[in-house]
Order: sequence, then structure tokens, then C-alpha cells
Amino acid sequence: MPGEHTACVIVSIGDELTLGQSLDTNSRWLSARLLECGIVTARHVTVPDDAVAVERAVREAAADAPLVISTGGLGPTEDDLTRVALAAALGDELVEDAEALRAIEGWYAARGARMPATNRVQSQRPSGASCLPNPHGTAPGLRARLRGADVFCLPGPPREMGPMFEACVLPALRPPAGRVVRTRVLPTFGYGESRVAELLGDLMRRGRNPLVGTTASVGVVTVRLRYEGGAKEAESALAETERAVRTALGAAVLTPEGDTRERTLAEVVLDLLKERNETLAVAESCTGGLLGAMLTGVSGSSVAFAGGWITYTNAMKHAELGVPDRFVPDAADARAPGAVSEETARAMALGCRERARFVLRGAAGVDHALAITGVAGPDGGTAAKPVGTVWICRASRDGTVDARRFLFRGGRDAVRTWSAMSALGMLRLRLLGVEMELLGEVERGEG
Amino acid sequence: MPGEHTACVIVSIGDELTLGQSLDTNSRWLSARLLECGIVTARHVTVPDDAVAVERAVREAAADAPLVISTGGLGPTEDDLTRVALAAALGDELVEDAEALRAIEGWYAARGARMPATNRVQSQRPSGASCLPNPHGTAPGLRARLRGADVFCLPGPPREMGPMFEACVLPALRPPAGRVVRTRVLPTFGYGESRVAELLGDLMRRGRNPLVGTTASVGVVTVRLRYEGGAKEAESALAETERAVRTALGAAVLTPEGDTRERTLAEVVLDLLKERNETLAVAESCTGGLLGAMLTGVSGSSVAFAGGWITYTNAMKHAELGVPDRFVPDAADARAPGAVSEETARAMALGCRERARFVLRGAAGVDHALAITGVAGPDGGTAAKPVGTVWICRASRDGTVDARRFLFRGGRDAVRTWSAMSALGMLRLRLLGVEMELLGEVERGEG
Repeated sequence: MPGEHTACVIVSIGDELTLGQSLDTNSRWLSARLLECGIVTARHVTVPDDAVAVERAVREAAADAPLVISTGGLGPTEDDLTRVALAAALGDELVEDAEALRAIEGWYAARGARMPATNRVQSQRPSGASCLPNPHGTAPGLRARLRGADVFCLPGPPREMGPMFEACVLPALRPPAGRVVRTRVLPTFGYGESRVAELLGDLMRRGRNPLVGTTASVGVVTVRLRYEGGAKEAESALAETERAVRTALGAAVLTPEGDTRERTLAEVVLDLLKERNETLAVAESCTGGLLGAMLTGVSGSSVAFAGGWITYTNAMKHAELGVPDRFVPDAADARAPGAVSEETARAMALGCRERARFVLRGAAGVDHALAITGVAGPDGGTAAKPVGTVWICRASRDGTVDARRFLFRGGRDAVRTWSAMSALGMLRLRLLGVEMELLGEVERGEG
Repeated sequence: MPGEHTACVIVSIGDELTLGQSLDTNSRWLSARLLECGIVTARHVTVPDDAVAVERAVREAAADAPLVISTGGLGPTEDDLTRVALAAALGDELVEDAEALRAIEGWYAARGARMPATNRVQSQRPSGASCLPNPHGTAPGLRARLRGADVFCLPGPPREMGPMFEACVLPALRPPAGRVVRTRVLPTFGYGESRVAELLGDLMRRGRNPLVGTTASVGVVTVRLRYEGGAKEAESALAETERAVRTALGAAVLTPEGDTRERTLAEVVLDLLKERNETLAVAESCTGGLLGAMLTGVSGSSVAFAGGWITYTNAMKHAELGVPDRFVPDAADARAPGAVSEETARAMALGCRERARFVLRGAAGVDHALAITGVAGPDGGTAAKPVGTVWICRASRDGTVDARRFLFRGGRDAVRTWSAMSALGMLRLRLLGVEMELLGEVERGEG
């Protein structure tokens, strides 16, 4: 009786991957599915369409883990070498699989075509291996035992690979008995990754179970919990650690107790607005629509998001939002606040609410307006207002106005993304009624 | 004198990668950049945040290739173990790098903050290694020699990793002499990848030199030429192949003869507008600002891009763009064209130009307006207007109006991105004065 699948090594095969022409999404997908089944992936290896490289990768993988899954290299062309490489690793010879051949011929017949001669090679397998049916393509998969490891070779195209994993690999998995792997994610916004680590302190200790780690992506620092052990203790252990993380990070955690889905900041803000039956409009200068795009990227956002104004030029700021000419005069004027200033940000936010009130008479305007104006760079920076200087203002129906100056690092994309995210962050804090200084914040306007 | 970098092994480090929580895009990016420099990547390896696994991966990589680049594991937290693992692989001890420490402290000082104690560890390096400055984050990189191999350790966030590769790794590369690898890229828009392959035909034959391949990313299909061989013949061989590709693909190629830079569609359209001294405004419904964000993502876009209106709700369409109530009545009316219709798209585009004329009196309005309205999904689709149905309209100063209906496949993000890209594509064709049916186009409004 073969042993448990205590770990898996995933081998991706293809020149297009090692040449950087295509992105390997299979390894990530397989790792996530395996984890859900209680099997941890120990390593991903990507090798080119080279028989020697593939054979070595498969042999080393089988030596390291009792489960090996490869993707790619099963096509009909001369650079599809997985069959040859597996045979070499097994010290076996290739034979033609009559059933696989019939399946390939049938695949073409079903499309009113005859199988091209080139595809016949796809019916070959090492004599000691078996073929795995591929309902979505011509490439059968392969299954073999190598040095006590179960080796599955699947085709590269995700829409063929995925279904074959579910149909042929999943039923053959033997996750470690009793031991399960469970994960939870807690997205946060407002602190940098190191500040989060500081606040989590001992919770991030290596070897702790559940293990606590963090990943950062465009402003959102996600805290990841991973439990490995008996199924019985899993939920209580995760719940306890989740509580500890929430206590340590407070308002920075984007999701409410018990909700551990991956969420975007826009999703979270829109949910808060919907709960309160409140609406939002935006006025964007340096982000030029990015904030609106983040909000409308969420399905159903029209309930809470009315729309906005992309006032990229000063003329638009004047005419659409009523920003006074003296703030952003056509002729350069050192005494004028300028487009990137607290005055202009406030005028944009207040003008946005004013304008929305006129526009949305039925709805009596919007409850909140967010305005963004800044220097995204790479040009346009000055000593007083370096690239990355951004004023963001929130104005709400209750008359409260919150204007903050930020200094963001990174290129134009980074500054713009951080600007839109921070605007959402400011509104979120307001909706929650909590106070927090956001990363990159360097100045507050007076109330 | 150290030898040539005949091959590279790329090591990606992070639990989030082997657990399938994040997708590794660094390995692909690095492989592509290395290839452009004449260095072929032999293998990608991805390992978890485990000191032993990282040390082994780095040692094996250094044994296999004279160039090793790792990404990730340089953060300030306890699960960032690249520094420790590299020291172990070198049989070296960790020391604090005074200069790196000053840089990290300076990074925080520049944001008006003090360095958290946790970040001090980021200034550590193996005594025999050197630190690489990171202008976009707190994590310095590392550089060392291991068994005659050059090892570079870069941080995981692409925004930090990319610039550090260009600044610190690129100058240290020693591609094999004599044999050069030269690449050219020809971005295209309007055809699908398979149609491009069909049109290129024999040019894409394997083993051809220059090799011709394609990659597709959010609507843009990029044709990639790769020459390997003597330096003398490189340029003529590439030029000949480039001409053949341009002949085959015609107006779909975004860049003019001789220009083989990677360009975004927004960059190309803005350049065409600037050449003509013309301006653009946008009216966005289902894209909600995405088109404006694409345009303003390009530095210096304010010369040609005035701004726009995010008319996500019908009330905004009425009040801001003058879309007649009868097109989008508040009460459902089967006879009304509705928000997603040729009538509404035209009214949005014409209203956008009209409104811009009022707003930008000085500039006498804008020369072109682009309007987008559609069903991005996943909800809101009907039999008559399924998810992915999008009407896009261009209206120009010369009175020409071009309205087209598209049916885009894929999820909400894909539909929205394709919508914004196709609007840019329509304007580009107009500015070039050429006619072409764009991918996904299913109907034309009458002139």
C-alpha cells in the first residue's frame, strides 16, 4: 500500500515559460487546489522543452516528494518531449496506447476532421505508464510510479489541465490522515508591511501554528493564517489566532469578524456605503479616473457610486467643480495655492458634492465626495511639491471635511494607485467612525 | 576574470507562491529581460519561506548556472529568510551594513517617519556579500559570488524588483560573446492572437531565425522577434522579418516602421493627438473611469486629454451629457433604447463634445469625444443585450460620428478593459484615416 502524499512538487514544461513569453498560471492553480485537499506544495520547477532538463526535473521531483504533477510538453510537435523524458526517467520504452489513439481519432472525428499524422505520437506512453483521458483536447495525460512517487503528467492549456486534475488526479490523492491544512486571509489597509509585522509581533513567529505571514500588494497588506494539524482543533485554533490578529491591527483590518475573504478596498467601502444607504461621487485630477475605475470594477457598485468628474485640466476644475480661478490661475502666480493644494482639493470635493446635488436632484445629491489632486510625476515636481505630493479631500453631507496631504514613493503608477486607495481608505475610516493615520500621510488640513 | 553568463537560474521565494495564494510574475519578467540581453534562462524554481529550502535552491542554482537571480524573502519580518539562507549557502555570517541602514532610515525620514525597529534586520548581509540600493522600498538587495556564480537577491514586489534589476543587475551581466540575442517587439491591436498567427503563417515556423512569436495581454497582441547568431547579420535579418510582419498585419501594428518599442495603446493614441494638436474628452458609463485612467497613466497626457465625465448612473447621463430622458427613462420602458444602445452612446459622445465646448471655451472644446456604455456583468445581461454587449461611439469636430457595437467575452474586468481599449482603437483608426474591423465588433451604427 503506497504511502501518504505528504508533499507535492510541480513541474512546468515549456520554452515559452523559461523564455518569459508566457506566464505560468498552472502551478499556482494546482498549489491552491492541492492545499484545499490538505497537501502542501514543496516546490515549483519550470524547465524548457528539453528532454534532458525535463527528465532531470521529474527524477529530482520524485526523489523529493511522493507526489509529482507536471504540466505541458504533451502536444504533437517535435518540441513536446514529456513522453520521451518520462520514459527516460523510468528507464522504460515508449509504446502506442490503442485506446488513447482511438480517443484522439474520435476527438477529430467529432469535429468532422481526420486526425493529422502528427498527432499519432500523442498516443504514445512509457510501457509501464497509463494514459489519462483528456475530454477537452487531443493530448492524453500520463500516470506512472517513479521511485515510490506518483507522477501525473498533464497538458499545459489550463482549460485542459484543470478538468483532468479534477477527474484523474484528485481521486488518486492521499493527503496525510488526520492532518489538515486550513487557511484564512485578513486584508488590511493603512499600515506598511513592517508596521503590521511590528504590531503582530510574536504572532509571526516561525513554527507557530497557525502560521501567520503577510503579503503586500498595491497598498493592501494581507495577513495570511495557515493551520496544519488535526481537523478537530483547526477551526478553534484559526479563530483564536484571527482574534489576536484583529486585536493587534484594529481598524486596519478591512473585513469584519468572521469574514476572512480576500476583499479589495473598493469592495469594502461599497459594502459600508450600501449598509448605510449612502452614496458617493468623485472628482479626480492626477488619478484621472482610476478611483472611479476601482469603484466600478465592483459589480453592483451603481447602488452607491453615482459617478464623477475627471477634471484633469484646470479649465475642467473651474467649469465643472467651481474651483476659483485665483486658486489655479491661467498665468503662473507664486502666491496662488495652485492645482496641488489643500485649497484646491477642498474646492474640488465641495464642488463635487454641490454639482452632484444639482445633477442628482431626485437623490438630493450624494452623501460623500472624494477629491484627488497631486503630482504623479515623473515630471512636474518642485522643491515645495515634489513628485508624490498628493492632496486628498473627503466632504460629506454632514458638513465634515477631511483634507490630508500625502507623500507617496515610487513611479507614476504607484503614486496614482496609492492616491486612489488612500482616498478610499479615508472614506472607510469616516464610515466606521474611527481615527487612523494612513501610510504616506504627512499633513492634515484643519477640520 | 569571471566567465560569461551562459545561462541563468531564477529562484522565487515565498509561502504565498507555493501555497498558490499569489501568482509569480517576476520569473517571467526577468526571463524576458535577460533574453533581451542575450542570456537564456535555464530554470525557474519556487520555494517556500523556509531557510533550508531557500539555501538548497540557491546552492543548486549556483552549481547549474553562472548567474542566479532570486526574488522575495528580503522583507523585515520573521518569514523573510533570504539573508539567512544566502549566508548559510556561503558558509558566511551576517553583518550589519552601515550604508544600507542609513538608506533605510533615510527612506523613512523622507516620509517624516522613524524607522521601525523591525526594519533594522534589512540592513544585514553576509560579510562577503554587498547590498544593492532599493530606491522604491526599504529592502536592499544582495549580491554575492557562490561557487563562481554571480548571485543577485532582489525583493519580491515587482515595483521594487524591476528598477533594481535595471540599476544593479543589468550593468553586471556578461552575455556570451560572438553569439548575440536581439529582439524586437511589434505591438498590435484589433486582431485576436489566432488571427495574427494565421496572418503571419510561415513566419511563425519553429526554428526560423529570427524566431517570431506572439504574446497577448489585455487586447494588445505583441509580435516578438528574436534573433540568435552573429552580430553582423542581426540588424538586417531583424529588419527583413519586421517588414514581413508589418506587411502581413498592416494597420494592426501600433508603431510606425523602425519603432519597435513596447507601447501602450494609450501612448500611441496620445502621440497621434499631439502630432495633430488635437484634444480628447471622454464619457464613461460601464468603464467608470478606466479609459481616463489609461490615458492619464501616460505622463504628459494633459496636453491632449482634457478630462471627462463618469456618468455611471442615468441621472448623470441626463444632467451632464444631455442624454434624453426618453432614451433611459427612470421607469422601465421596453420601447426605450436604454442605457446600452446606439442612441445613448451617440448622445453621450455628442453631449461630451457639446459639454466640453461649454467648459473649455478658451480651447473651443475638444476635437474628439469617446463614449462607452455597456453591460460589464456578471449581472444585468438580457437575451437581447447579453453580458459583454458594449456600444462605443466616437464623435469628432469634423462632424463624423462612428458608433459600433461590440460583444466581448470574459469576466467584468475583461469586458471593461476591452471596452476602454477598443475606444482607443477606434480613435486611432480615425486619426490614421484607415478602416479596420476590430476584434469583438458585431455591428456598426449608420455613419
